[in-house]
Amino acid sequence: MVLLPPTVKLAGASNPDSGEEGQMFSPLLLPQEEIAAVEQGFRIRPLNEKDYDKGFLDLLAQLTSVGQITEESFLTRFRSMSQPQSYYVVVIEDESTNKVVGAATLVLEWKFIHEAGARGRIEDVVIHHKMRGRKFGALLIKTLVALGKQFGVYKMSLECKDELVRFYGLNGFTKDPGNFMTLRFDQPELVPLNEELGQSKI
Amino acid sequence: MVLLPPTVKLAGASNPDSGEEGQMFSPLLLPQEEIAAVEQGFRIRPLNEKDYDKGFLDLLAQLTSVGQITEESFLTRFRSMSQPQSYYVVVIEDESTNKVVGAATLVLEWKFIHEAGARGRIEDVVIHHKMRGRKFGALLIKTLVALGKQFGVYKMSLECKDELVRFYGLNGFTKDPGNFMTLRFDQPELVPLNEELGQSKI
Repeated sequence: MVLLPPTVKLAGASNPDSGEEGQMFSPLLLPQEEIAAVEQGFRIRPLNEKDYDKGFLDLLAQLTSVGQITEESFLTRFRSMSQPQSYYVVVIEDESTNKVVGAATLVLEWKFIHEAGARGRIEDVVIHHKMRGRKFGALLIKTLVALGKQFGVYKMSLECKDELVRFYGLNGFTKDPGNFMTLRFDQPELVPLNEELGQSKI
Repeated sequence: MVLLPPTVKLAGASNPDSGEEGQMFSPLLLPQEEIAAVEQGFRIRPLNEKDYDKGFLDLLAQLTSVGQITEESFLTRFRSMSQPQSYYVVVIEDESTNKVVGAATLVLEWKFIHEAGARGRIEDVVIHHKMRGRKFGALLIKTLVALGKQFGVYKMSLECKDELVRFYGLNGFTKDPGNFMTLRFDQPELVPLNEELGQSKI
């Protein structure tokens, strides 16, 4: 048995009445309990191509550096992430403003170990600074953990600052006895590759 | 500018004389300096489909649980990792025995942050217990770091046990002030999904 990315038909394609165009993944994959728990006037849903105009990148800029990303670049990244289905960016939309006010990503990492299994990583969790205290963060984490369990991952992990250890602890995570080490490239050195091997850039 | 997986023609396809069938990625992507530094009688190269018969999974079993993986499952995982090009499993082969005696994986994680950049993760590093002390580990890490830089990642990271902190420190990594947290599923709960949304399994 090998865990593989789910082959998901977008709801929009299979059922034009219930679906939406441009979704990163089918909303039917999302755990119903968590989806139902969101405050009225807000909606938990997959990232959508239209979120370029709904403040998604501005929201990420509250987390870390984002830089200038054109709509074309956004769509290129969006589509490269969607295939195969290893990235699950879940957002919370404020229905009164049509803006994205929360986002978190589940990345599935495919393995040979653990019977050709998969592990899950929680990445890039951010709640709009004006929307804190509504438990949106906890709801997104619960959503991603349920999604990961559904995919059969053997482990989920994340990196966080000291002030968030308690928050993630409340959501089932424990500090790992291992060490997390990094190597940062302040100025990524882009070594020119020849055309054939080249990195595609837009 | 959006970093994308390199579109690599396998050397075997573009140049039948120099290439090999069944490679995970083109060996031309590997940094020449590190490749040249390997001890005589050994070879650093991409993982190959034939490594199922060359002890690759037995080697991984020295790192963590692997379980029973049929050749078909191995090939399924191999091919799911190869497309798109986000996984770079580099192995060291002992040319006297035709066995894989070292392996390490670079995973590229595609981002919207950092100008739709990418980060690199070093995963599943293992040297055969009879082959330690030959600096194979350091050579594999240097190879993956050079590969990551070549792809323009803004950061590389890894998790490791206490006894390996010094080793990775010698290779440029520093302990991150952040926390690494995990949630382990001892018995992954496979929630049955309906056919349309279903997980593919083999």
